[in-house]
Amino acid sequence: MIGRLNHVAIAVRDIAAATAVYRDTLGARVSQAVPLPEHGVTTVFVELPNTKIELLEPLGADSPIARFLEKAPDGGIHHLCYEVGDIRAARDRLVEAGARVLGDGEPKTGAHGKPVLFLHPKDFCGTLVELEEA
Amino acid sequence: MIGRLNHVAIAVRDIAAATAVYRDTLGARVSQAVPLPEHGVTTVFVELPNTKIELLEPLGADSPIARFLEKAPDGGIHHLCYEVGDIRAARDRLVEAGARVLGDGEPKTGAHGKPVLFLHPKDFCGTLVELEEA
Repeated sequence: MIGRLNHVAIAVRDIAAATAVYRDTLGARVSQAVPLPEHGVTTVFVELPNTKIELLEPLGADSPIARFLEKAPDGGIHHLCYEVGDIRAARDRLVEAGARVLGDGEPKTGAHGKPVLFLHPKDFCGTLVELEEA
Repeated sequence: MIGRLNHVAIAVRDIAAATAVYRDTLGARVSQAVPLPEHGVTTVFVELPNTKIELLEPLGADSPIARFLEKAPDGGIHHLCYEVGDIRAARDRLVEAGARVLGDGEPKTGAHGKPVLFLHPKDFCGTLVELEEA
């Protein structure tokens, strides 16, 4: 069912500093910072040959990553995003298998403009999993 | 400098259960479990089209992931592994940039038989980073 690893998301408090780590220290290609107020984050993509690292900095008062960073002030890996062909079919299969889909179970438009769902970390090896329709 | 994301490593207490999650619930292709006593882990690879997820279960009394799992009993992402062309050149560049390499700074033979180094999470967005010579 799952296909490519679309990205690994890393939450950070200072996206300029994190971008410098990936660009200058690790020598990777990085995008411009893009504020996404409707998602409560500013994003930078680290473009690797086979996948992406998504750096996330909280934006606004209700950022979904603010609480994560209170517990992990140095930053940390926030979620893994796997691609699926049909996100509703994937959801139905997961629910049938007893896995918990977060929210109301309806796909939302994610930060890349595609339908996404998030899955409960306790059902996936302690890892928050995002599914994105490819 | 860094190239492909070689793998994302997820530490788990029960690798059979974690393998079932990826194989049966998420529908991915998984390898057989391989015990690596010299590294203190048993590994299973989840083979995605563009990269791998490495499931790690502690093996033996001195497993390097035992303490991690005490703090994260549901499991969690343990490290990211990036490929580099020349691991000693990469190390020298990182040290010059002020980043901390774990251990004595000499590459060790990793779980895949290739030279590896680990970098200090505090210098890399709260993420333990493994470099592997490709």
